[in-house]
Amino acid sequence: MVIKTLRKGQGGELFTNRRIVDKVIAKGQTIVYDNPPHIIGRMSVVGQKEGKGPVGKYFHRVLSDDKMGEKTFENAEIKMLTTAIEGALSSAKLRARDVDLIISGDLLNQVTTSNYVARDLGVPYLGIYAACSTMTEALNLASTMISAGHFDNVLCSTASHFATAERTYRYPLEYGCQRPPYAQWTVTGAACTALSSKGDGPKITMGTIGRVVDFGTTDLNNMGAAMAPAAMDSMVALFRESGMTPSDFDLIITGDLGKLGSDILRDLMQEQGYYLGQRYIDCGNMMYDVNQHCYQGGSGAACSATVFNSYVLDKMIDGTYNRVAYFATGALMSTQSCYQGETIPCISHAVVIER
Amino acid sequence: MVIKTLRKGQGGELFTNRRIVDKVIAKGQTIVYDNPPHIIGRMSVVGQKEGKGPVGKYFHRVLSDDKMGEKTFENAEIKMLTTAIEGALSSAKLRARDVDLIISGDLLNQVTTSNYVARDLGVPYLGIYAACSTMTEALNLASTMISAGHFDNVLCSTASHFATAERTYRYPLEYGCQRPPYAQWTVTGAACTALSSKGDGPKITMGTIGRVVDFGTTDLNNMGAAMAPAAMDSMVALFRESGMTPSDFDLIITGDLGKLGSDILRDLMQEQGYYLGQRYIDCGNMMYDVNQHCYQGGSGAACSATVFNSYVLDKMIDGTYNRVAYFATGALMSTQSCYQGETIPCISHAVVIER
Repeated sequence: MVIKTLRKGQGGELFTNRRIVDKVIAKGQTIVYDNPPHIIGRMSVVGQKEGKGPVGKYFHRVLSDDKMGEKTFENAEIKMLTTAIEGALSSAKLRARDVDLIISGDLLNQVTTSNYVARDLGVPYLGIYAACSTMTEALNLASTMISAGHFDNVLCSTASHFATAERTYRYPLEYGCQRPPYAQWTVTGAACTALSSKGDGPKITMGTIGRVVDFGTTDLNNMGAAMAPAAMDSMVALFRESGMTPSDFDLIITGDLGKLGSDILRDLMQEQGYYLGQRYIDCGNMMYDVNQHCYQGGSGAACSATVFNSYVLDKMIDGTYNRVAYFATGALMSTQSCYQGETIPCISHAVVIER
Repeated sequence: MVIKTLRKGQGGELFTNRRIVDKVIAKGQTIVYDNPPHIIGRMSVVGQKEGKGPVGKYFHRVLSDDKMGEKTFENAEIKMLTTAIEGALSSAKLRARDVDLIISGDLLNQVTTSNYVARDLGVPYLGIYAACSTMTEALNLASTMISAGHFDNVLCSTASHFATAERTYRYPLEYGCQRPPYAQWTVTGAACTALSSKGDGPKITMGTIGRVVDFGTTDLNNMGAAMAPAAMDSMVALFRESGMTPSDFDLIITGDLGKLGSDILRDLMQEQGYYLGQRYIDCGNMMYDVNQHCYQGGSGAACSATVFNSYVLDKMIDGTYNRVAYFATGALMSTQSCYQGETIPCISHAVVIER
């Protein structure tokens, strides 16, 4: 993998000199939004296990039944995502008919959860697939649409469910397969962020579109090690192209690298000359307590999406953090590609949020 | 389903009055691109069967071996998409390093074909899922990115393969399942369109983002009937919001409704007060000859993408057509959702291309 070698500080005047901004963008992956959209509504819904974790109290709703009274886990996932969208609409004081566009994706084959939810909503819909990096791909596309003046109110949403993800990617739960110590636990949850051209919530000011990075990992259970290089690639791109360093941010979060993956990322970034230190956290790492036996922590599209829409935005709104960089991380394999001997390609899209 | 009831002709001054344009957009699904991107390169690759069909001579490359010398059909699909991208780059006189972004999707679980191709290309990547409506979702996202000034050169691509699609959605080929007379045949092919802020090729001037429409079809073999209402919904949105009628276009194409689906669409549009007439064609309907035993015609993400990138753009460049509306159509189910008793939700995104 070749890391871009733009001169450090090249984008130093990013916010004052449009010509330099254009130059940086033309060569890189980072977008600066001319009319940054505001986050005007949000909701995080999680399952029981997640509700008992260290950040449990921040989530807006904790389910008492992970099946939500449905016959299948897939239908529960649809219901959970619908709940998150309704909550985000209500917190944004919008009705469904005020929504111009929904951008959504999830982990299931053919992103069916998002498709069926969008059917019920009846508004223009863009389906995306970025595995666990879905939320930041959606936020970047929504910000582009709003900044360009095409739409005013855009919803970004995603969901994952432990039971549906295990069925899709690994073994049916009934099989009782033993998990290795480097495994992570797919978060049961759903989240929705409402963005608008108006309002006074935190703004999305920049975004970095990730590249597919593959360091040759083949173990479907070791997602953290597979995804860490992708997070590093996008992080280095954002820092180099914006001329900023880790200390320019109050908080840097990654999606679901877990304990092992986030340790690997710290090392990889150190090699690139960036010390992440205390301001860096990983949502997968903080999702479960060590006594909950989830080994390296949480994963899944909902992992960072639920933490971002509760804990992180709470702390931005109360003034604890002013500028946050959010790197969701996704592993882009399918079970079929891995059975056929392929390695695991990964990606990380990022957004910068400012008060 | 509720069809929007904007007054007819409300967008009549679309290209001259920015205020009216904004008003139409705010209420609807149609985007007008301020800085329309140009199509500067393209390539269509198809399998043997498609090469023998009525539009066979227009495709840039017809494969002699649908497996392309690979061990698996999935790898052949990856190789086919890579070939289409290389061809589009060469026809656009671009090198891979000149590409700012690739937007791609396909029919396989977790859009693996696109993910693995993007890995080898090493440029920023947005994965999308819109089933057979992928090409027009990609063209709309690329046009938004270029029109907003974020990127200069963007590739849009998609692929499908008869053998991988049958494995993913229906039965393994070895099973020798009998096909009903209303079935369609998934096109083996790949296509790539290179868009740029500069150049003098045909321009993408407008786009309509589809909504998910579901009339209750449940038969995985009858895609045309399932998708026709979605095509109707987006077609009516484009006509009403732009104030245009079918006669304002030299050609209106749909993706892969096939013979049955396109007949249904003609009827549905007639009910809405629009007569499509001779200017309307369906790419699925024109892909195979009746002697090729593909029943209602072609389907798959590559169906309309290959016809658009060869036949349609050839005829635009030679002056036969000046303004074309392209509605790709996608069915958003998974096999799992259908086994669990769900109906088939569909979508159609559209773009308007002008010389």
